[in-house]
Amino acid sequence: MREVYLDNAATTRCNPQVARLALELMTEDYGNPSSLHRKGFEAQRRLRAARRQLAEALGCREEEVIFTSGGTEANNLAIQGAVAARLRLGKTLVAMATAHASVLEPLRYLEKQGHTLRLVPPLPDGSADEAALLEAVDGDTVLFCSQLVDSEVGTVAPVAGLSRAIRRKNKNVYLHCDAVQGLGKTAFSAARLGVDSLSVSAHKIAAPKGCGALYLRRGARILPLCYGGGQEGGLRPGTESTPLACAFGEAAALALGNMEENSAHVKELREYFVNKLVKIPGVCMNSPPQATPYICNLSVPGYRSETMLHFLAERGIYVSSGSACSKGAASHVLKAMGLPPERVDSALRVSFCPRNTKEEIDVLCEALGEGMAALARSGKGK
Amino acid sequence: MREVYLDNAATTRCNPQVARLALELMTEDYGNPSSLHRKGFEAQRRLRAARRQLAEALGCREEEVIFTSGGTEANNLAIQGAVAARLRLGKTLVAMATAHASVLEPLRYLEKQGHTLRLVPPLPDGSADEAALLEAVDGDTVLFCSQLVDSEVGTVAPVAGLSRAIRRKNKNVYLHCDAVQGLGKTAFSAARLGVDSLSVSAHKIAAPKGCGALYLRRGARILPLCYGGGQEGGLRPGTESTPLACAFGEAAALALGNMEENSAHVKELREYFVNKLVKIPGVCMNSPPQATPYICNLSVPGYRSETMLHFLAERGIYVSSGSACSKGAASHVLKAMGLPPERVDSALRVSFCPRNTKEEIDVLCEALGEGMAALARSGKGK
Repeated sequence: MREVYLDNAATTRCNPQVARLALELMTEDYGNPSSLHRKGFEAQRRLRAARRQLAEALGCREEEVIFTSGGTEANNLAIQGAVAARLRLGKTLVAMATAHASVLEPLRYLEKQGHTLRLVPPLPDGSADEAALLEAVDGDTVLFCSQLVDSEVGTVAPVAGLSRAIRRKNKNVYLHCDAVQGLGKTAFSAARLGVDSLSVSAHKIAAPKGCGALYLRRGARILPLCYGGGQEGGLRPGTESTPLACAFGEAAALALGNMEENSAHVKELREYFVNKLVKIPGVCMNSPPQATPYICNLSVPGYRSETMLHFLAERGIYVSSGSACSKGAASHVLKAMGLPPERVDSALRVSFCPRNTKEEIDVLCEALGEGMAALARSGKGK
Repeated sequence: MREVYLDNAATTRCNPQVARLALELMTEDYGNPSSLHRKGFEAQRRLRAARRQLAEALGCREEEVIFTSGGTEANNLAIQGAVAARLRLGKTLVAMATAHASVLEPLRYLEKQGHTLRLVPPLPDGSADEAALLEAVDGDTVLFCSQLVDSEVGTVAPVAGLSRAIRRKNKNVYLHCDAVQGLGKTAFSAARLGVDSLSVSAHKIAAPKGCGALYLRRGARILPLCYGGGQEGGLRPGTESTPLACAFGEAAALALGNMEENSAHVKELREYFVNKLVKIPGVCMNSPPQATPYICNLSVPGYRSETMLHFLAERGIYVSSGSACSKGAASHVLKAMGLPPERVDSALRVSFCPRNTKEEIDVLCEALGEGMAALARSGKGK
């Protein structure tokens, strides 16, 4: 059966060239970067090259890149680490209510520890409510978390403007940005976003699962989550995963180099998709037009997400109902947007990668129509 | 130049079969295990198979295996997580002074937070001082960390006996064992060791860097370090690195299946090595005869470790002066054993893998002799 993979915001297929690089680091340049012999120095050199690639993709300095095991660890390191280093400055934490679980859950943990958590809902179209976010920041605020690209509906937040406005209001606020869904999809520079830290993940850009990175602005102070051999400036100890870091670096360089071309292609895919969707009665878009073309969230009211997901998956078509990390729970993002339950319960997230084609969209749209007809007949839909 | 890699306690070359499996998970079964479609279920199935392989290698149940990013994270999760869950039970932490940095440093961090840390030196031959360790445990003790196999001299600790004795003295003590250097080298069962948790690392057993696991006894309570999407029972959230977990599982299964054969071969290598070493005047062994054959620590008093390391590395022979994570600092293990400075400063750790050969030992021993002569002539040695 031909597979149509349209769940690229959950995870991507690793680029075979990138995977082969990881394999090379596993079996040839396999030294421990901390070892004081040629095998170690060579591993260190490869790791440094990967760090440079990441720095270029993030628009920062090499020494501002900390490799982690993924986006979740990068978000936790920034959030827990920044708050732990600012216990005396205040207790209030501000974030978007639409943030990913790897941002919301450490914040909720800190709330249980005695911090005050303010989660700001988005505007009805899913985009950031700048005025409300700024309003939520006060003199007691120590942390502000933004999300560059929303993982469920794909809205792009005006992070640079928010950073400037928040700094004007309270210069002590630590600014963290979750850019996991932004890397490779939207052009940005960590420095120009004006944040103290920014998290990215390898497996969202055709690199292997198990690797991420945190941009940490030179001078920004956080405490580590783990302690050990002092790797990554002592902020993230443990033998560096040179295979994954180098694969991530390579994938980031490819994503950066091809960003315009990829964006143009995916934009075309999205337009093609939207034009087909409007012809299917009963389907409505949840992603606003100005969202990233990589993520299209739609609803087919009356058809429960999991029923439609199952129908599509039976035909080898893979989409999701929301963030994979929420494992099928009703979307907190769509709820925060104020969508009615029938829209939330029937949501489908279609997420593209540059390898997707119009033919795949044809297959999806045809199956969607078939699914609506079949499920209505069987009584499972409507 | 032919390479003679004898630094396998620092890291190992990934088994090509294991690396190919990782590549397959990157490019074929690349789904997110949390995704609710066939691609996700298949990834989940592969992850579960890897977990079973680990459970078999560790002698525990499948649901007692938590995948982490490596040994450092596994040790931190157990140590910080157990102490955080026992804040009201006591404040004293007991460990071997010879523990690895990824055990010592989280303990020192906790000490700074107000805990009492007791580090117990080994007997002069490097083996665990059972009486002193037991003596250090009292009614205030909440955590006891052992090390199954020492990473620098290779002594094997009587963990099962220690666990029983400590539990008799104080049943509330959480028992953690760092088994990073033990996996695949010495037969053990987590359950029979009687510990609450036990950490292992993939890259020490010919699997890729960036993966580890924590055995957590069913019923043992720890708090997580990170919060997010609830993966790994909520104790270690973040999209699972299926490529690395599956590679780790496969390497663990191979290590388990070949353990006797590998041990016999490495034991023969060690005997061959020791018999050659006794013929080089001025060389002395730091590892006691009962240590694991995989790790041989020796000193060439008068010849500084880094000078000899450099001489050997120039000839393509890779050994270390101690743990890679200590990056050339004088060994805290040899110091704790009470060795004189000239022994500590001239230490070399030779660590084998089953692929090493007697010919490689010949090359090392010849180069060692040449190095001593050349360095003595140049005035760099003696």
